[in-house]
Amino acid sequence: MTNEKLDAEIVATLRGVSTATVTMQLLKRGYRHVAMRGVLPLKPGQGRVAGRAYTLRYVPFREDLSTPAVLADPRNSARIAIEECPAGAIYVVDARGKPDTGIIGDILAERMKHRGVAGFVTDGGIRDVAGVLAVGLPCWCAGPASPASITEHTSSDLQVAIGCGDVAVIPGDFIVADDDGAVVIPAALAAEVARDGAEQERMEQWILDQVKAGRSTQDFYPPGDATRAEWAKLRK
Amino acid sequence: MTNEKLDAEIVATLRGVSTATVTMQLLKRGYRHVAMRGVLPLKPGQGRVAGRAYTLRYVPFREDLSTPAVLADPRNSARIAIEECPAGAIYVVDARGKPDTGIIGDILAERMKHRGVAGFVTDGGIRDVAGVLAVGLPCWCAGPASPASITEHTSSDLQVAIGCGDVAVIPGDFIVADDDGAVVIPAALAAEVARDGAEQERMEQWILDQVKAGRSTQDFYPPGDATRAEWAKLRK
Amino acid sequence: MTNEKLDAEIVATLRGVSTATVTMQLLKRGYRHVAMRGVLPLKPGQGRVAGRAYTLRYVPFREDLSTPAVLADPRNSARIAIEECPAGAIYVVDARGKPDTGIIGDILAERMKHRGVAGFVTDGGIRDVAGVLAVGLPCWCAGPASPASITEHTSSDLQVAIGCGDVAVIPGDFIVADDDGAVVIPAALAAEVARDGAEQERMEQWILDQVKAGRSTQDFYPPGDATRAEWAKLRK
Amino acid sequence: MTNEKLDAEIVATLRGVSTATVTMQLLKRGYRHVAMRGVLPLKPGQGRVAGRAYTLRYVPFREDLSTPAVLADPRNSARIAIEECPAGAIYVVDARGKPDTGIIGDILAERMKHRGVAGFVTDGGIRDVAGVLAVGLPCWCAGPASPASITEHTSSDLQVAIGCGDVAVIPGDFIVADDDGAVVIPAALAAEVARDGAEQERMEQWILDQVKAGRSTQDFYPPGDATRAEWAKLRK
Amino acid sequence: MTNEKLDAEIVATLRGVSTATVTMQLLKRGYRHVAMRGVLPLKPGQGRVAGRAYTLRYVPFREDLSTPAVLADPRNSARIAIEECPAGAIYVVDARGKPDTGIIGDILAERMKHRGVAGFVTDGGIRDVAGVLAVGLPCWCAGPASPASITEHTSSDLQVAIGCGDVAVIPGDFIVADDDGAVVIPAALAAEVARDGAEQERMEQWILDQVKAGRSTQDFYPPGDATRAEWAKLRK
Amino acid sequence: MTNEKLDAEIVATLRGVSTATVTMQLLKRGYRHVAMRGVLPLKPGQGRVAGRAYTLRYVPFREDLSTPAVLADPRNSARIAIEECPAGAIYVVDARGKPDTGIIGDILAERMKHRGVAGFVTDGGIRDVAGVLAVGLPCWCAGPASPASITEHTSSDLQVAIGCGDVAVIPGDFIVADDDGAVVIPAALAAEVARDGAEQERMEQWILDQVKAGRSTQDFYPPGDATRAEWAKLRK
Repeated sequence: MTNEKLDAEIVATLRGVSTATVTMQLLKRGYRHVAMRGVLPLKPGQGRVAGRAYTLRYVPFREDLSTPAVLADPRNSARIAIEECPAGAIYVVDARGKPDTGIIGDILAERMKHRGVAGFVTDGGIRDVAGVLAVGLPCWCAGPASPASITEHTSSDLQVAIGCGDVAVIPGDFIVADDDGAVVIPAALAAEVARDGAEQERMEQWILDQVKAGRSTQDFYPPGDATRAEWAKLRK
Repeated sequence: MTNEKLDAEIVATLRGVSTATVTMQLLKRGYRHVAMRGVLPLKPGQGRVAGRAYTLRYVPFREDLSTPAVLADPRNSARIAIEECPAGAIYVVDARGKPDTGIIGDILAERMKHRGVAGFVTDGGIRDVAGVLAVGLPCWCAGPASPASITEHTSSDLQVAIGCGDVAVIPGDFIVADDDGAVVIPAALAAEVARDGAEQERMEQWILDQVKAGRSTQDFYPPGDATRAEWAKLRK
Repeated sequence: MTNEKLDAEIVATLRGVSTATVTMQLLKRGYRHVAMRGVLPLKPGQGRVAGRAYTLRYVPFREDLSTPAVLADPRNSARIAIEECPAGAIYVVDARGKPDTGIIGDILAERMKHRGVAGFVTDGGIRDVAGVLAVGLPCWCAGPASPASITEHTSSDLQVAIGCGDVAVIPGDFIVADDDGAVVIPAALAAEVARDGAEQERMEQWILDQVKAGRSTQDFYPPGDATRAEWAKLRK
Repeated sequence: MTNEKLDAEIVATLRGVSTATVTMQLLKRGYRHVAMRGVLPLKPGQGRVAGRAYTLRYVPFREDLSTPAVLADPRNSARIAIEECPAGAIYVVDARGKPDTGIIGDILAERMKHRGVAGFVTDGGIRDVAGVLAVGLPCWCAGPASPASITEHTSSDLQVAIGCGDVAVIPGDFIVADDDGAVVIPAALAAEVARDGAEQERMEQWILDQVKAGRSTQDFYPPGDATRAEWAKLRK
Repeated sequence: MTNEKLDAEIVATLRGVSTATVTMQLLKRGYRHVAMRGVLPLKPGQGRVAGRAYTLRYVPFREDLSTPAVLADPRNSARIAIEECPAGAIYVVDARGKPDTGIIGDILAERMKHRGVAGFVTDGGIRDVAGVLAVGLPCWCAGPASPASITEHTSSDLQVAIGCGDVAVIPGDFIVADDDGAVVIPAALAAEVARDGAEQERMEQWILDQVKAGRSTQDFYPPGDATRAEWAKLRK
Repeated sequence: MTNEKLDAEIVATLRGVSTATVTMQLLKRGYRHVAMRGVLPLKPGQGRVAGRAYTLRYVPFREDLSTPAVLADPRNSARIAIEECPAGAIYVVDARGKPDTGIIGDILAERMKHRGVAGFVTDGGIRDVAGVLAVGLPCWCAGPASPASITEHTSSDLQVAIGCGDVAVIPGDFIVADDDGAVVIPAALAAEVARDGAEQERMEQWILDQVKAGRSTQDFYPPGDATRAEWAKLRK
């Protein structure tokens, strides 16, 4: 299978795996630090997105580095990102955890949507939120904020390792985001997390059905060996 | 009247008393520290709940104490709570004020709802929020968060004094929670707070009607002796 | 033109200028510190308000200064404000950035609405939020909070320079607030910010339409000289 | 006795009463909110100061209000304070709890010392700390910080109620500050707090001597009725 | 060897192992969450202490639970701890990470020192700091703070699992504290961490001597296989 | 003059200019955002250092990226920095504002001192502080912290734009650090800031002498036109 096909399969599977399940799969593999702090859907109910991370990092603003002229410069990395972030990717911006400054607004969201970007994730704010919601690009952020990025940031490198919501994001890592927030899957683990996560989703749907039918969680959930054995039998 | 009947009456009355009114009744009795910081409805419009507190406390996680195996152990206090929290009670969890970790998800919410638990309150996060909202158990928390409790916590004692949202909760205290958040009423004060709170609600409805009709708040609201006298006369 | 007429014109124009645009207009004039931190609409979709600021400031509570009796005293500045804040003005309260205490509730919101106050802005909380939303006065705040102001504050001077959301507000400054939050325009700059902001809105609508039609942002947006020249030509 | 003489006596007594004792005396009178958060001696071992509070408040900076020219304007309230704060008073500045900006430096400290100001207290920073320590004016603050006040603040009213370290300070309140930090005594309570605090100091010295001699704290300290009775007998 | 003797040996060894070395030994065993946040020596240069943890936890204060009378009650757990914490142990108090309230003062420090308690560790404040330093009991805390514990806390259980500085402490765990702060060693790992930590100290002293003599850290430090091999040879 | 000579002159001059003066010189040029938040001398009284910035940035740790093996890898950027940071430079590390993790310890400090590095600046912690103080390399940081960098960070790029203490640092910018903290001077402004800062120091020494001699600050300090004119005359 080509890499592209593999990626497409992983993404398709991850779209059916909740971030809650992804974090558990990663915890089982020893990873406790994968969910972005303070990064939530701009509006709950946007559904779930999954894709490879395309990254930008900001450094603090300085009066000479962060001017409207800099924003209008075609060599500005934050401009370039909008046109270069691949279709199907998730654009992830390290905004240094500052909620009070907007990283994108409605026009950039519109352009990204047009280009097929799967979603936008930042630990900073989003501006023009009414407009961004009208555009419909799925977005995760630290909340609405009217000021433009240059008010508090200077755009820096594209496609480097960044922090977002206090977790590491390496370009090419997989991102899954839904109503519980956004999580990172190290690229090397994505295939197995997708596979085992999908299976966990199936088992938990069965558990939920049982619990809805009145079954006690005592000796049943969270699942130990007995529950897993029962599920394994059913699966056959 | 039996204790049980008394409890039921207090709870029924408190369901008609807003948390804003409860905090004022407690402030009049010298209590300023009863509203949980940062604890808000998972979704506004869930209505108001009232009930006795059933408590669990967490301590920080440690790699050897907070594993998936621990979660699956039937002696885990966080598991036991789900099956032992009484119907009509409110399950209150001290999650050390950490918003980024989920304390319950959809399956546990479903089981609590099935068992008649009146509501869930924590100063931590909730995971599987889409699912939890579908279940319909009224929940108050610090927001959505995908990671499971063991990512950041170790479950500890049941039914001990805890802090939640930086206020003390003693098992058996009354909790009232609505769109303004969650508040604690020391058990010994619940009957009088319910009674006087209900009366304050009636008076404030009358005041609101007057103000809607164009009456000035000058010399009228917040209510001093004159307003109270006027209301007392009306009540007769 | 009379001052009153001029004010009315500025306000009418600003109602069509987003806070995102206002912050950019002010940044171009050297102002980076005009958007209130952590101050968001009580409920998104309340629309945009604009008006002159009428101000109150709080200091920390003290057990002898912050009693229910003080709240009921007609000389209490927080009471006076409700009856003196002019129609069309925006009532801005410095609540010292404390989200956990409510500054107004439904009755005061009702009275302000009745008196024609355009909106309410605070860096503190709002109580009785279900009631306040029913009243319909547009409000910006740090979130819902059940305790009354005296729980954490003592009301102090009216119509003095205050801080709100960590920005300076001088009585008479213009406030614009929408789904992105609340911003301050120094009074002396309001006319030009309104004028240039309205023009920016028109240009950005055109840019958005172009981008919707598939135009690349490369060499186009954020707007530099070429984009501005193209727009200037179109405007003729 | 004249007011001045009374003041001098209270201050002389308070110089012998630790802030730990002052907070306990106030707690016994129902006051829990009197110790300034995050306000510590610029250098421990500066000893204890006591005096009436002379106050200044800052609001957030704005680019047009907070310029070097404003700093040099003789009508600037922060300048006036340096020459008007009475000898024996403690100059208390509401710096909005911002540790990263300096409120005074060595030259202003020198002038205050020359004029007999008893001490300087702020919830902001102090700059030129090496120089300020050389001057020897006792100072309490949030730490060293190189930027001048106008970097983050605009000076506002003198001698109004302020917040400092999240507690209310009314001009004329008494301040006591030592290695444990700075506390406020409402003016009306100063005489009795000084008197009872001095007595508490004597009793606790006796208790400490007993404990040093090997006496158990069980049934002895913190002091209940038995300990107090024993002390009362000794005092006679 | 008796347990007591084993303990004494572990403690003696740990007194020669820095907290920096302890954290590295634990990290090598998969533990990243063992150093208490914000817990520093009351005064640097107090040296290093090591010992088993004896624990107390606080919950938030409430006006009825946190009175001077409660403090004076011999059944108060915070009083009992002072007389029951074993000689050689380290008394660790969960003060909910609140720096602004003092957990012990000079009299209690004196008594603990008299009783042979090895040290005091809390994520809260310490009051009467000048007196506590005079007593000489080694203390780690969040800084000086004048108010008594009941201002913000209610004392709760003794000898239960607690959090301190955001890490779990189980009664009987080993604590090591020095100028870098305080760390926890799970009881089961103490012997091996002491042994391997002491060896690491020896190797790092040799490395430091080499570096002082001008050796490059390139290919040498932090130590990889080559450095370890060189050290192993030297050790023979 | 060669660049090297010019650099040496700028550095020599800046060693005589306090960070308080540097921030004022930059504020006069429109820069308000140059002093690192929360970055203070590891020990006051270390004197002042000045030099060009050599930079490293960290991103958040991840279990697979931040292991003891990674620390020992000679290609680790944090290792390379120790051997490549030029003599006379100041090594500045972006530790994402996390105070609880140590960025360097005594061995690395010793090596940097040996190599002639002028100072070390980070917004993270320092470990082995007793040892680092013994080495004598001047250090500025967020405080002592025992855990190694990999506990919370992954080392990333060398010599890129970073944030440190929430301000931008571009490799080659000048850093000045003293007891008030650490500040950044954009490279292009260093010569003039040094020159004008030195002159400001001379004028302020004269002002301080005048104030010591009893001169009022009224109409004198902070210096306006009259004071500057008087000084200008004296200078001739």
